[in-house]
Amino acid sequence: MSEFRQNPANRDWIILATERAKRPDSFKSKEEKPKKPAHDPNCIFCEGNETKTTDEIWADRGNTKPNTPGWKIRVLPNKFPAVSVNTPIDRTIEGMYRKVCGYGRHEVIVETPIHNRCFGNMPENEIYGVLITYKMRLIQLMKDPHVQLVMIFKNHGKRAGASQEHPHSQIIAIPIIPNHIRNEIDAGRNYTDDNGTCVYCDMLKEETKNATRIVLETKYFVVFEPYASRTPFETWIVPKRHDASYEHVTDEELFDLAHALGTTMAKLYIGLDDPDYNMMLHTAPRQEDPADYYHWHIQIIPKLSTPAGFELGTGIYINSAIPSESAKFLREIEVKNEDIVAH
Amino acid sequence: MSEFRQNPANRDWIILATERAKRPDSFKSKEEKPKKPAHDPNCIFCEGNETKTTDEIWADRGNTKPNTPGWKIRVLPNKFPAVSVNTPIDRTIEGMYRKVCGYGRHEVIVETPIHNRCFGNMPENEIYGVLITYKMRLIQLMKDPHVQLVMIFKNHGKRAGASQEHPHSQIIAIPIIPNHIRNEIDAGRNYTDDNGTCVYCDMLKEETKNATRIVLETKYFVVFEPYASRTPFETWIVPKRHDASYEHVTDEELFDLAHALGTTMAKLYIGLDDPDYNMMLHTAPRQEDPADYYHWHIQIIPKLSTPAGFELGTGIYINSAIPSESAKFLREIEVKNEDIVAH
Repeated sequence: MSEFRQNPANRDWIILATERAKRPDSFKSKEEKPKKPAHDPNCIFCEGNETKTTDEIWADRGNTKPNTPGWKIRVLPNKFPAVSVNTPIDRTIEGMYRKVCGYGRHEVIVETPIHNRCFGNMPENEIYGVLITYKMRLIQLMKDPHVQLVMIFKNHGKRAGASQEHPHSQIIAIPIIPNHIRNEIDAGRNYTDDNGTCVYCDMLKEETKNATRIVLETKYFVVFEPYASRTPFETWIVPKRHDASYEHVTDEELFDLAHALGTTMAKLYIGLDDPDYNMMLHTAPRQEDPADYYHWHIQIIPKLSTPAGFELGTGIYINSAIPSESAKFLREIEVKNEDIVAH
Repeated sequence: MSEFRQNPANRDWIILATERAKRPDSFKSKEEKPKKPAHDPNCIFCEGNETKTTDEIWADRGNTKPNTPGWKIRVLPNKFPAVSVNTPIDRTIEGMYRKVCGYGRHEVIVETPIHNRCFGNMPENEIYGVLITYKMRLIQLMKDPHVQLVMIFKNHGKRAGASQEHPHSQIIAIPIIPNHIRNEIDAGRNYTDDNGTCVYCDMLKEETKNATRIVLETKYFVVFEPYASRTPFETWIVPKRHDASYEHVTDEELFDLAHALGTTMAKLYIGLDDPDYNMMLHTAPRQEDPADYYHWHIQIIPKLSTPAGFELGTGIYINSAIPSESAKFLREIEVKNEDIVAH
């Protein structure tokens, strides 16, 4: 029988639709994916096209000049930003409605000059470079006292909303806290009020004890398929050390995270044939750091199903993959060195 | 400049991304859509294939036998139900997690025997038939005291998650109230506590006064693009008479709704070339009827953009269409009689 499952970290329900349950390997991509070149002269994020992008905010480069070749990672202002600092920070009333000027920052992190790399086939030292760039930008953006929340995310593949094929992440810093985040904060705080412990720390204890939903465990991180996974192969990476904000992640932890994230992505890449996915880094809003009831973490949501009217109307996702089966499938995928930088 | 806009009915924020704003007609479907036949012998919902579906719960038919040809509308149990009554109504704890057995009912409404009809080209009397079937099933499903919420919805087109091409709606009745609905209820109640009025009634006053976001106004309904539309051409149909539940809609109102909905769908069909969409009927959960702070309504969300990492991470949709421009575009589309039943 199918069942409703609740995620204690946000109190959201899902339906695990066992009547519709599919074997893990049935989620493998059926589309023929065209082979991507290592360098695409028409791609604005490829080396040689630096002048076609906005001017870089920061780059990991040697003795080369800004906006020229010779870089490993570039941080750029988004060319079509959703928010901008060139606006007052005004709250206004328009009739009965509230609006806030679109203040904020919208940046793009070009993760590598190599067009056909992705987290699924990238050497760990390169992933480490991206992860430390996330941290650096988060700290920098949080220096602006108007910024309340920074969302770092990655859209991989067209179905996941990526408009550029070249590997990149995005950062949007905003001056408001939306309902969705409030809900997560409130659920965490209520849990801590009731139990005296952090809900994420308790999930790690539960998951490592139960072990069926674990994909991977490293020195500092646990990778697992949540009990109330919204979609097939939803995957969370949670640090063992309690901390509300990614701003405080240590270098040793980041090296380990590069391994945990790289291996997870390689398993998804091999097991599901490079699925499209969204990756979100949940880190505490300004007012919730430090907090004993919030715990930064990474969520990966492969685009293997289409949320439809029921999901939009109720917020309840119908998931046709059993989390423990997906976890077993991923656990059993061996990642060999030659899988990394396969192209 | 872009701006954050809040929907007072649920307090959700969106970003109106004016830097990315596109002309309304640029959302027109670019895909070549294959012409559908009026009858498809391989479609299980087409006439003649009645024995290939689950046994009908109800049908609008003359003197013909159940599960034979000669019907106008059929209501069927979903073949792969997300929930089922063949389960106890148990709440259990699994480690630190909560689960509820997947109790409920999942039905399909086959709206017409004609394969290539849709709300965008259907005569109003046929739409009326579907709308009254919604009401009848809602009343019937609410008779089960375990049912807390009934979601009636429609997925039109593959991008909107429809697995069958034949025109159909779905109904899922469930024993829990999810966060998403609680949030809507709470926002409505807080608004009424603060203002003494219903937020939906006030929105109707505001929208008819302002008039820029109105698509259509009929005797009993207002059709408009919400101030904080999540997606291009998000459209709401709200009844002028305050009522929490669709269970109490009158026959005269339903005739008028058939006209309002049919005309709106025809405008979308003509203006955007039959876009994929989700349609949701929001009606009060059991405990909120009657309520002076809830007001049933219909939401239509065309699938013209892809929610990505930022939407998933924050719940804030980035919308690149200005609601008043979309409304003007739809207002100006003339629906002639020959557009109805065009195929």
